[in-house]
Amino acid sequence: MDSSKIRKILESVKSGNLNVDNAFKNLKHLPYEDLSFAKIDHHRDIRQGIPEVIFAEGKKVEDVICIAKSIFKRSKKLLITKASREIYDGLKIKNAFFHPLSGVISAGEEKKKKGHILLLSAGTSDIPIAEEAAVTASFLGSRVETIYDVGVAGIHRLMDTRKSIDSARVIIVVAGMEGALPSVVGGLTDKPIIAVPTSTGYGTSLNGLTALFAMLNSCVPGIAVMNIDNGFGAGCLAHKINSL
Amino acid sequence: MDSSKIRKILESVKSGNLNVDNAFKNLKHLPYEDLSFAKIDHHRDIRQGIPEVIFAEGKKVEDVICIAKSIFKRSKKLLITKASREIYDGLKIKNAFFHPLSGVISAGEEKKKKGHILLLSAGTSDIPIAEEAAVTASFLGSRVETIYDVGVAGIHRLMDTRKSIDSARVIIVVAGMEGALPSVVGGLTDKPIIAVPTSTGYGTSLNGLTALFAMLNSCVPGIAVMNIDNGFGAGCLAHKINSL
Amino acid sequence: MDSSKIRKILESVKSGNLNVDNAFKNLKHLPYEDLSFAKIDHHRDIRQGIPEVIFAEGKKVEDVICIAKSIFKRSKKLLITKASREIYDGLKIKNAFFHPLSGVISAGEEKKKKGHILLLSAGTSDIPIAEEAAVTASFLGSRVETIYDVGVAGIHRLMDTRKSIDSARVIIVVAGMEGALPSVVGGLTDKPIIAVPTSTGYGTSLNGLTALFAMLNSCVPGIAVMNIDNGFGAGCLAHKINSL
Amino acid sequence: MDSSKIRKILESVKSGNLNVDNAFKNLKHLPYEDLSFAKIDHHRDIRQGIPEVIFAEGKKVEDVICIAKSIFKRSKKLLITKASREIYDGLKIKNAFFHPLSGVISAGEEKKKKGHILLLSAGTSDIPIAEEAAVTASFLGSRVETIYDVGVAGIHRLMDTRKSIDSARVIIVVAGMEGALPSVVGGLTDKPIIAVPTSTGYGTSLNGLTALFAMLNSCVPGIAVMNIDNGFGAGCLAHKINSL
Amino acid sequence: MDSSKIRKILESVKSGNLNVDNAFKNLKHLPYEDLSFAKIDHHRDIRQGIPEVIFAEGKKVEDVICIAKSIFKRSKKLLITKASREIYDGLKIKNAFFHPLSGVISAGEEKKKKGHILLLSAGTSDIPIAEEAAVTASFLGSRVETIYDVGVAGIHRLMDTRKSIDSARVIIVVAGMEGALPSVVGGLTDKPIIAVPTSTGYGTSLNGLTALFAMLNSCVPGIAVMNIDNGFGAGCLAHKINSL
Amino acid sequence: MDSSKIRKILESVKSGNLNVDNAFKNLKHLPYEDLSFAKIDHHRDIRQGIPEVIFAEGKKVEDVICIAKSIFKRSKKLLITKASREIYDGLKIKNAFFHPLSGVISAGEEKKKKGHILLLSAGTSDIPIAEEAAVTASFLGSRVETIYDVGVAGIHRLMDTRKSIDSARVIIVVAGMEGALPSVVGGLTDKPIIAVPTSTGYGTSLNGLTALFAMLNSCVPGIAVMNIDNGFGAGCLAHKINSL
Amino acid sequence: MDSSKIRKILESVKSGNLNVDNAFKNLKHLPYEDLSFAKIDHHRDIRQGIPEVIFAEGKKVEDVICIAKSIFKRSKKLLITKASREIYDGLKIKNAFFHPLSGVISAGEEKKKKGHILLLSAGTSDIPIAEEAAVTASFLGSRVETIYDVGVAGIHRLMDTRKSIDSARVIIVVAGMEGALPSVVGGLTDKPIIAVPTSTGYGTSLNGLTALFAMLNSCVPGIAVMNIDNGFGAGCLAHKINSL
Amino acid sequence: MDSSKIRKILESVKSGNLNVDNAFKNLKHLPYEDLSFAKIDHHRDIRQGIPEVIFAEGKKVEDVICIAKSIFKRSKKLLITKASREIYDGLKIKNAFFHPLSGVISAGEEKKKKGHILLLSAGTSDIPIAEEAAVTASFLGSRVETIYDVGVAGIHRLMDTRKSIDSARVIIVVAGMEGALPSVVGGLTDKPIIAVPTSTGYGTSLNGLTALFAMLNSCVPGIAVMNIDNGFGAGCLAHKINSL
Repeated sequence: MDSSKIRKILESVKSGNLNVDNAFKNLKHLPYEDLSFAKIDHHRDIRQGIPEVIFAEGKKVEDVICIAKSIFKRSKKLLITKASREIYDGLKIKNAFFHPLSGVISAGEEKKKKGHILLLSAGTSDIPIAEEAAVTASFLGSRVETIYDVGVAGIHRLMDTRKSIDSARVIIVVAGMEGALPSVVGGLTDKPIIAVPTSTGYGTSLNGLTALFAMLNSCVPGIAVMNIDNGFGAGCLAHKINSL
Repeated sequence: MDSSKIRKILESVKSGNLNVDNAFKNLKHLPYEDLSFAKIDHHRDIRQGIPEVIFAEGKKVEDVICIAKSIFKRSKKLLITKASREIYDGLKIKNAFFHPLSGVISAGEEKKKKGHILLLSAGTSDIPIAEEAAVTASFLGSRVETIYDVGVAGIHRLMDTRKSIDSARVIIVVAGMEGALPSVVGGLTDKPIIAVPTSTGYGTSLNGLTALFAMLNSCVPGIAVMNIDNGFGAGCLAHKINSL
Repeated sequence: MDSSKIRKILESVKSGNLNVDNAFKNLKHLPYEDLSFAKIDHHRDIRQGIPEVIFAEGKKVEDVICIAKSIFKRSKKLLITKASREIYDGLKIKNAFFHPLSGVISAGEEKKKKGHILLLSAGTSDIPIAEEAAVTASFLGSRVETIYDVGVAGIHRLMDTRKSIDSARVIIVVAGMEGALPSVVGGLTDKPIIAVPTSTGYGTSLNGLTALFAMLNSCVPGIAVMNIDNGFGAGCLAHKINSL
Repeated sequence: MDSSKIRKILESVKSGNLNVDNAFKNLKHLPYEDLSFAKIDHHRDIRQGIPEVIFAEGKKVEDVICIAKSIFKRSKKLLITKASREIYDGLKIKNAFFHPLSGVISAGEEKKKKGHILLLSAGTSDIPIAEEAAVTASFLGSRVETIYDVGVAGIHRLMDTRKSIDSARVIIVVAGMEGALPSVVGGLTDKPIIAVPTSTGYGTSLNGLTALFAMLNSCVPGIAVMNIDNGFGAGCLAHKINSL
Repeated sequence: MDSSKIRKILESVKSGNLNVDNAFKNLKHLPYEDLSFAKIDHHRDIRQGIPEVIFAEGKKVEDVICIAKSIFKRSKKLLITKASREIYDGLKIKNAFFHPLSGVISAGEEKKKKGHILLLSAGTSDIPIAEEAAVTASFLGSRVETIYDVGVAGIHRLMDTRKSIDSARVIIVVAGMEGALPSVVGGLTDKPIIAVPTSTGYGTSLNGLTALFAMLNSCVPGIAVMNIDNGFGAGCLAHKINSL
Repeated sequence: MDSSKIRKILESVKSGNLNVDNAFKNLKHLPYEDLSFAKIDHHRDIRQGIPEVIFAEGKKVEDVICIAKSIFKRSKKLLITKASREIYDGLKIKNAFFHPLSGVISAGEEKKKKGHILLLSAGTSDIPIAEEAAVTASFLGSRVETIYDVGVAGIHRLMDTRKSIDSARVIIVVAGMEGALPSVVGGLTDKPIIAVPTSTGYGTSLNGLTALFAMLNSCVPGIAVMNIDNGFGAGCLAHKINSL
Repeated sequence: MDSSKIRKILESVKSGNLNVDNAFKNLKHLPYEDLSFAKIDHHRDIRQGIPEVIFAEGKKVEDVICIAKSIFKRSKKLLITKASREIYDGLKIKNAFFHPLSGVISAGEEKKKKGHILLLSAGTSDIPIAEEAAVTASFLGSRVETIYDVGVAGIHRLMDTRKSIDSARVIIVVAGMEGALPSVVGGLTDKPIIAVPTSTGYGTSLNGLTALFAMLNSCVPGIAVMNIDNGFGAGCLAHKINSL
Repeated sequence: MDSSKIRKILESVKSGNLNVDNAFKNLKHLPYEDLSFAKIDHHRDIRQGIPEVIFAEGKKVEDVICIAKSIFKRSKKLLITKASREIYDGLKIKNAFFHPLSGVISAGEEKKKKGHILLLSAGTSDIPIAEEAAVTASFLGSRVETIYDVGVAGIHRLMDTRKSIDSARVIIVVAGMEGALPSVVGGLTDKPIIAVPTSTGYGTSLNGLTALFAMLNSCVPGIAVMNIDNGFGAGCLAHKINSL
């Protein structure tokens, strides 16, 4: 709906190349498909740089499958997060993959990988969310390197990742509990850092709120934070930045 | 402290070009200055891409001035956020500027501006935080365009910013109250978006927590969020991304 | 217990048409039935415009059935929310319906529909709550139009609903996550808007508190908000307004 | 931007009555005025039924006055909430009024009052918020009746308001502390009720959150709730409903 | 350990009626039994007026049974709250009762009932907690009258309880959701009122916190509040007051 | 409005001793005085056992004085809490007292004191709230004994109060910080205990919420809790219990 | 990586005893083992005084077993907390023990016990957490004495522990609900006290937050607090202090 | 009140060396002084290892001075925290010191310093709380070393403190914002660590709650946490541990 398009349509009407009815349809036609319970937004990829992705948690298996098939049919691309093997089995889409660590289903992954996203995670319990981010960014076409279990209790582990930190374009840091890893990493580099708090922990971890707030309060300037357990969002953003 | 440097120092020791004491100093020397109450980190610029910046709120005026002078003397660069005119007057640094809307003091601003950061803000009350982000990113060397008062209650205002959105490399969106603007902007573009919640509002705005949480829950994938009122951090991150 | 009734009773006592005992009973008699564990309020419909409705969640199946039968017997009307098919099967009331999407059971629905309530929902996960509102308002006698999956991430989807927005008398907007839809809709219309936050989301959605607070902080004046997931209440209020 | 308008413009282009440049301007022209720090939305009245209103709290006095003058000049209407006498004195607009109880400034109030909004408040401390609602609704053109200090601790006081309750079209109930008044009023009437929690109270009143949550949890179906202390919003919504 | 006892023991030592070792034992002997995992406090009844009561929730069935048997053996009295039929079946104590509505097990209930405690509850979902209070107070020896389902949405139901309110010595009011009932009852009587919030409700009922806070903020002076769902505590306190 | 009164009025109408108009007035007449901004409830004393008391905090000085004079004129009794000396000076009521520790103003205090209320407070900072409770209960006619600064950090101090604990009818325990005192006192006595949390403390005392929650969770059964800093309410309740 | 080590390595390079490559490896070699999903930190024992311990909750059984075997193989020591018998059965490590009360698995426990840690717990429900602390401290080599069920409701029970309190070097106090025990114990001794809040309780116990906050607000100076239910951490710290 | 003392008193009574009245007094005498508004606990030093310390915040200046003088007169020791110079000036105690950074007043400080407490703080804003801890521990007789401004954003600064870390017996770590420093320090040492969160920060620092929760969730085992801004408590505990 940007102005150049409107201008072109108007020019075409003016010149008689386009009649009013068709011009109207062009202006009004919105590229989504109506499944009655879900409007699938087939042009989102063009608009937002990310195809319509299905968040499976809390949705009915049959609904997820129905939406997924419609999306895949049109775009030959598919990404489902927080999914189960049951959904995967019901999909019956050739070349679709189920990533068990993260519960992501993907099909039509971008083959050519570009740039370099580094993904660091603090503990073994943070791996599912880290994997969700890694699978997402890779699916969209970014080269992703993952290094897990480098929390602040053993700073020496982190030091070994120095070379990877230096060569990355963007860094995703996934951590639960006290959420301190992004600050320490941020103190070592001038790369953009995306911090993802996880719900790992108990008691006053408050299901990830403590890690989230700690990351938002980082004493290192310029760390951006995602919602708790939102590996998918971090993967999207890192890919967008990596694509610049 | 990266491995190539250590190797070089070791080689020099081996070759006799460097004696043990000096090698030790080289390995150990840390480039910060000790003011007893504050260790100024003069090499942060190299390490993190952002010079040591002073957050003035809650600090004594005389302490801020003392730290500021030490930083400026070494680096010829200075950035103080949440500052007052009283601090500015006490500094007596030639070519330092006081930005009254945001309360930022700057000196030694990068003259050459590159890239394009777009800064959108929702209401007039969000301008101080938006300005803090703009001044910061500009100081660091990014070209910044600001468009204010384009909140979701008047979607048509936002539509006029379309061209700016399309030409920007990174977009900062500043909003208080219900914090809905980043979602709407995010639906229109594939650029990385940095959302900054402000403490604007009353009652259940909870001093910005509501805007923060709304932004973290955006239905648009890939929006990163900063701490409440943290315009400075957004400016840093946007500049880092813009510099890629 | 309004004054005209009291006056009439007093006049009848005066005139001898009513003896003291009966007058007393008239003044004291309260139109509810005592099931020992539940006082059913058969006159609520007259008083509040809404018949006594059963909120089934957390109640025992047999208790719900017992209360439901007593209500239906007297009023030939029945509405049960957050119900299960098990309750429906146990009811054995002819012409009762089970609405599976919303978990509502209804019987004696008002046949004549009047006015026009528009119901917009942001995502597919919000449909159960939206349906609860729609079924409720329709049951009470309002004409209801529903348009689902028109969230702010795809503003263009919302634009297609313009005609419906313009012709409605009241608009219910159901949304979870960042709860931004009511603000955007509110910017487009002068109709009363009832916003219903849902518990859709994760992490800092805080089971719907974030959507609730965002809606309460809407920058558009005059949006009223219901409790989280309270589709029933929204349906009642919309019907009351639609009936003016 | 609705479809009939687009069609008309297209027809005019087709017929040659409108050239492309002007058609483009027509499609693009947005009726707001740019004061650089605030975009005043002069057509909001048409679009949302409420003129652009200024929320003065937290804004600079000179900014409020500047915005206010611009609004008044174009629309001859003005409403400023949470204002001070200092702003009023600076405005120098003839026929503007300062309402000291509520801190509202108004000019160009709708003379003809229609319908009937009843405003009930629980305690004397709730009066400023109640007055803000009353002044707002009256300004917009609704007839408003106010009855104050009828809290639930003295149910008999409330009973005297029965006649007003019965004749009103909409009822606004303002209460702080335990926020119980809307439930009791709601048990007595079938009119739409708008509940406004106030920050009156101490300790666990949590600055109005307790009243807010209590109102959202009312056992009476169909009570809508506004943000804490948001008398203005309640006045707008009540007027919209009253205008149906 | 009160001073008169110490004096007596000292006198006995002085007079030679008690030797030092026995005096020491007397001073030191504490009347509890050590089950290694639980110290049963057999003299609590004398000290606090309430026998040692077992809170079964979260304890292992076999532990509850073991503690219960030890208590019953010594005191011939037994009260277990939040219990299950499984515990009851395992106890095999003759004359023990299982109260299914409240999940209380009792044995050795005080036969003689005295005074008058009135127990009012707002909705049918509040009955389990109300019953817990009623069973407890009755067990301890108070006469208890219960009237259920008299919430504020139907003030007329409450009016019928007037006579009971007037004749009671203490009133327990149990309510969930907005927790408004204690305020309304408190406006009608000069009796001490004990308010018990329940976790009935959803969304912003916050598992009973809203009802709790509303009750603590009651505009009626002198209402005391118990923990959420703490019917047992209310029963104890009401009995203590009723016993004065 | 109790049934015997209604019966009597009806009998009088029947017998002709009362005409319909007067009967109506009798039924309807409510004993409050309308000051327009405050309805003073002169019969509250009869109904609730507590005269209408003014909570001065957040009210305008002149309003407090106006309400106070109206109340005193009719009832010759006056109690104002959270008051200032400025209010006291403006009142000019002979025989009124200002209690500086608690900020209470009283006039017409009950001369005859009966029963025995014991008031214990944990720290010196809790004294203002404790005094508010003491002054209130004494004003209403209870004999009050106060013992201050007997917190749990020095259990031995508390032991000295044993005799007072044994002779009291009701015990008020005022404590801030961790709010542990009521539990320890409750372990020593079978008297009803009213716990008042204060906002004393810092950090995680959360302005009294921690003390409040600790008291609600007391492991001693039958402790009732008031709102934070609500000494007045505790005094009322203790007096009601003491009066049984 | 301390300076003396670096010096030694540099001296060896200088003297030719160490070539550059080996020196580099020495400086860089970090003593952890990479299992790809978990970096086991075999030298943590030396660095932090506590071996790498596995927190089993939320981890997959097979992952826990795999990590456990790797740790045990190298260090002949093993501690797993929040474990299940299923993990224990899968481990098949001779001389490993499963502590059912606390869910701890241990192997290679320190045989020689030194010092004296006293562990007090308030209620029977707090025993699992208390046992976790006791098993941990004992495993690390501290002599631990445990006394359970000495809550503040029966202060006399606590008095019997006086001798143990006097002879201990460190005291761990475990309590849920109102968390008052640490304050009372702290009032009796000059020993360091470590307080552990448990999630025991309901309603406003807020899953242990109330006990946590109460302990942090203790009126006794010098009580340190652990995370909710963190018996393991308390055991570690008590052992570190006991080892001084 | 320990058993040996009781035995001795009983023996003396037996032997006639002590008459009953004096024995009673001995058993009952509690070593505190009653100032009516404050019971000063002169023996606390013996019992708890810490003299009675005055927390001045929120207390009246004259009360603080009166209590302080009474304490100093008896014990020749004095410690007042969160004090002002105004209090200091009013005290007129020779050899009393006012520590302006921390607002502590001390007199009778222990001259002999023993052991070694290391105090690390993250930022310059944390210094007042760090100083309060340092002054307290030093006052009690511990040798204290302080190193400030070694936050995690510059890990290299921390590395220089290695030698101090290794030689300390106890380490206090003071940090605000994300509170990450204790975890990083804890990863480097086996010494007991006491973490003190400060209220430094803004937005989601939530006045120190975020730092507090982050510290409680540290991935390093055995870090104990104090209340927000409780430097005094940390000083006490560190001294107790240092004294072992």
